[in-house]
Parts: sequence; structure tokens; C-alpha cells
Amino acid sequence: MLDELLQGRDLEQALQAVGAAVDATLDRLLPPAPGLEAPVVDAMRYAALGSGKRLRPFLAVTSASLFGVGRIPALRVAAAIEMIHAYSLVHDDLPAMDDSELRRGRPTVHRAFDEATAILAGDGLLTRAFGVLAGPETHSDPAVRCELVQAAAEAAGSQGMVGGQMIDLIAEKQTLDIGAITRLQRMKTGDMIAFSCEAGAIQGKAAAEPRHALKAYAHDLGLAFQIVDDLLDAEGSEAETGKSVGQDAQRGKATFVSILGIERARAQAAMLSDQAVRHLDAFDDKADLLRDVARFVLTRRS
Amino acid sequence: MLDELLQGRDLEQALQAVGAAVDATLDRLLPPAPGLEAPVVDAMRYAALGSGKRLRPFLAVTSASLFGVGRIPALRVAAAIEMIHAYSLVHDDLPAMDDSELRRGRPTVHRAFDEATAILAGDGLLTRAFGVLAGPETHSDPAVRCELVQAAAEAAGSQGMVGGQMIDLIAEKQTLDIGAITRLQRMKTGDMIAFSCEAGAIQGKAAAEPRHALKAYAHDLGLAFQIVDDLLDAEGSEAETGKSVGQDAQRGKATFVSILGIERARAQAAMLSDQAVRHLDAFDDKADLLRDVARFVLTRRS
Repeated sequence: MLDELLQGRDLEQALQAVGAAVDATLDRLLPPAPGLEAPVVDAMRYAALGSGKRLRPFLAVTSASLFGVGRIPALRVAAAIEMIHAYSLVHDDLPAMDDSELRRGRPTVHRAFDEATAILAGDGLLTRAFGVLAGPETHSDPAVRCELVQAAAEAAGSQGMVGGQMIDLIAEKQTLDIGAITRLQRMKTGDMIAFSCEAGAIQGKAAAEPRHALKAYAHDLGLAFQIVDDLLDAEGSEAETGKSVGQDAQRGKATFVSILGIERARAQAAMLSDQAVRHLDAFDDKADLLRDVARFVLTRRS
Repeated sequence: MLDELLQGRDLEQALQAVGAAVDATLDRLLPPAPGLEAPVVDAMRYAALGSGKRLRPFLAVTSASLFGVGRIPALRVAAAIEMIHAYSLVHDDLPAMDDSELRRGRPTVHRAFDEATAILAGDGLLTRAFGVLAGPETHSDPAVRCELVQAAAEAAGSQGMVGGQMIDLIAEKQTLDIGAITRLQRMKTGDMIAFSCEAGAIQGKAAAEPRHALKAYAHDLGLAFQIVDDLLDAEGSEAETGKSVGQDAQRGKATFVSILGIERARAQAAMLSDQAVRHLDAFDDKADLLRDVARFVLTRRS
């Protein structure tokens, strides 16, 4: 039962339980390869396994639990989402992109392996994610699997994550206003966070109303999350965040923090977090972990 | 009707007709973006549209025609396959990989745009391809769409194209024997060529026998194609092939040509081409274009 993973646990315990279960699923879905291609599979495993907040898979699993989705289907979708997230980090960290040395407290993939292997590992993770979503164990109804693939492709594609990262690169050369930055962040991180929450509703064939409520929750959560990310980049340390910091200011990049200032950015994140929680009013206490996540993103230090 | 695209045309005419129809489909599936993300969509269009042999989409359309598949579904699958192929070329050409300047007679994507945009354009094409395969217009039966996504993910993933490219990079540092090179090529190009042929059978819900025959055909065709690719790299000119040549020898990379020598490699390609044609014996003259392709790959100069 999926509920056993979450019931009676506070947020920290539930995050840990889901993280461990997703890791076990990823380990099975990404077995080491025996042939000469082993390095790329090792790099895929390095990128996806054993570290990270697991926020997106947690949202996927918690949302799925609202709609009675089974444990194996929910964890497969969560693992696919983590693969897509890990791929995006590997490619964003590349020298031609953000040129980051540190990610999740460890050397980035192109540092631990090499650049070519990192590009291929990202490609491999993205590809595998779609294969997993379309696989029969993900749902008995193939129409549901197709919907998951389509929704993931939209959230990750040129009108979602890929497009958002493109705009993020442009933001280093061109000063964006608050509207453009909000759109950029909705595309770059918001859409995949929204898909993480929506996936459970798709799997559970939820009615339109709870599905929209979850999407609205995810939208506000994603923006709050990103504002806090900008705050951490401006104020955090590498030791705390486990990744390179201070890069935005160094590059003169407009962010929520550079435009709003630290105080207003913090207030905006708090407002969005409250608003996210209110979108869950129609759900009973099974949604408490989602409410906790919305409060948690405000206080996170990594 | 799909047949109208092929009937009464010789190979060159049919290649051109399918190429134009696939281009029109790609143009619709990859519309220019209005926002700041426009450059990545422009790069995706640059990579996928308006050039290339269109061998894989041609195989997909021709195979689909054997099983009564409709024109729109066949062209959508063909376009998705071309997106995956184009993505792989964009990433393989990157400085960290093959560092190629020329592709399909034009500057490679990272030359025409920049490296970051090229990485993202590849990611965007791969992502879009899966979204297209899973979309309702691709087939009325979602189980068929899921099977297409899964088969494409296998052909393109770490045990297919991505793994093959990994081994190809290793082949620059380590001398591979003929068995390892055959496996590398099966993974790097063979599996996607096989998927191109198999996709029509999946769409047409073909019986196991014709499906296996097509796969066997594709396997031999793919290997013949690759041997000729090595021959062109050893003997061709940039003007003829439209891409950088002589790179294998320059890097001391073991290929079919370096191991077998030019004459034996040519004989091997001819043998494989004959064998490919024989796998089609159970099909009537509707498979003539596939037979022609198998002969054509031997004589191609680009």
C-alpha cells in the first residue's frame, strides 16, 4: 500500500521514506550495464541515485496517495520524474550552460565523469523516463500512460523546462522584468513541479476539480520554491546548499531577489506558500503533507 | 491515403515525396515560439527541417504502408523518428563529442547558434518526439501509442543509441575488435533504423512473422548502411557527403574499414544488402521500395 509509506510520519520522516523508496525504484529501473557503455549508465545512476531533496517525487507520491494510486505505479512515476529532473540538472550544469562544479554536495556529472558522458547521461535519463512512463507496470490503462507521457513531454519541452532554461541563459545577457522572470520560472521549474502534482491525479483518474486544485497548489508552490532558491543563491553558502552559490549576482542576472530585494522577495514567497495551502482546502487531512511541504519550502536551507 | 505518397514512384521520387510530407508534418509539430525561448525552437527547426536524407522517416512510412496504416498516423511517427535522429546528430556534433562543423551541408547547430542552444535544442527535440508518439492523433489505440513510446525509448536509450554513442567515444581511446564494433553500430544506428521499420508494424498491429521479417531486414540494412558510412568517411569528400569526413582515421578510430580494409568492407556491405532484401521475400511488390533502399545504401555518396 502506498499509504503505509506516508501515514503517521511527519514531513521529514515522510520525505526520507519516499526518498528511500524512490531510490530503490531508480536502482531497479537503471541497472548497471555490463558492456562498454557502462560509463554512461554509471553516470546516469550517479546523477539520479542517492542524493537530492526528492521534492518532485515526494509531490508525485503524496498526490497519488490522495487518489488511491497503488505503491508500484506511484513510485514508477515518481522515479521517472526524478530522472527528468536529474537530466535537467546534469545538462544545466554543463560548461556551456551554468558551468557548475558542485551539485547536491558532490562534483557535477561532467566533473566526476567528463562532458561527453554527462551530455549522454542526461539524454539517457530523459529517454528512460519516457520508457518508464509508457511501461505497463505504470498503469493498467494505456490511455493513462499516454496522458502521463504527453503531460511530461509538455512540462519538459520547449514550452516548459527546455524553453525556461533557454530564457534563463538569455537572462544573463538581457535584463528581464518581473513578468518575464515569472514566466521563465514557471517554465523552468514550475511546469515540472505542476506535473509532479498532477501525475497522481492523472493516475487516479481524478475529477477536474481536485485536479485543478492540485495544479493551482503546485503553481504557487513552484514559484515560492524558486524565490527561495534565488534567496539561497544570494544569501546561502555552498556548505549549506550543496551547490555553487552567488552565481546570479556574479553574472548580473535579474532574479526575483535582484528586482524585489530580499525582504519583499521573502514576503512574496510567504504569500505564495499561504496561497498554495489554501488551494488544498477541499482535501482532508490526507493532504497535510502537501500543506507541510508548502510551509517547508520557506524555511529550507538547501 | 498513405499509398498515394508512394505508389507509382521510383525510389528517388518516393524519397522526395516522403521527405516533403515529413517536412510539412515537422513544420506543424514544431511551430516557431513567440516568447523569449524562440532561439531554442528556431534551433530545433533548423536541426529537423529542410535537409537530410530522411532515410528513417522513409523506412517508417514505407513499412507503415505494408500494413494499411493511415497517412497522418504514419507521418506523425515518421516525424517523431526524424526528431529523435536530428537530436542525436545535434548532440553528437557538439564540441565535447565529435566536434563537427558541418552537417547536412550546413553549419552544425552549435556553430549556427551556440553550444548551450544546441544542447537544449537536442533535448527539446527528444522530448517533443515522445509527446508526439503518445498523442491521440498518432493512433486511436493508446496501447499502440504506449508500445511506440516504449520501443523508441529502448532504441534511443542507454542500451541503444545513447549507449552506442558512449562506446563510439570509447573507441577513440581503445581499439575495438569487429564484434565490439558490430555491437556498437547496432546500438548507435541499427536500433533506431530497426525501430523505424518496426513502427509501421506496431501501428498496423502486424502479426509476429512479418514484424520479425522487417526487423531482420532493418538489422542487415542498418549494418550495411553503417559500413558504407565508414567507407564514405574514409573515401568521400565534404562536398559530396555534406559533413566532415576523414575524422575516424584522424582519430585512429577502429571502424569496419580500418579492420576489414576497403575491399572486404564493401563486399560485406553488399552481402548484408542482399540478405536484407531476402528477408522481405514474404512481402509482395508493396515492399519494392524497401528492397530498393537496401540496394541504394550501397551506392549512396552522402
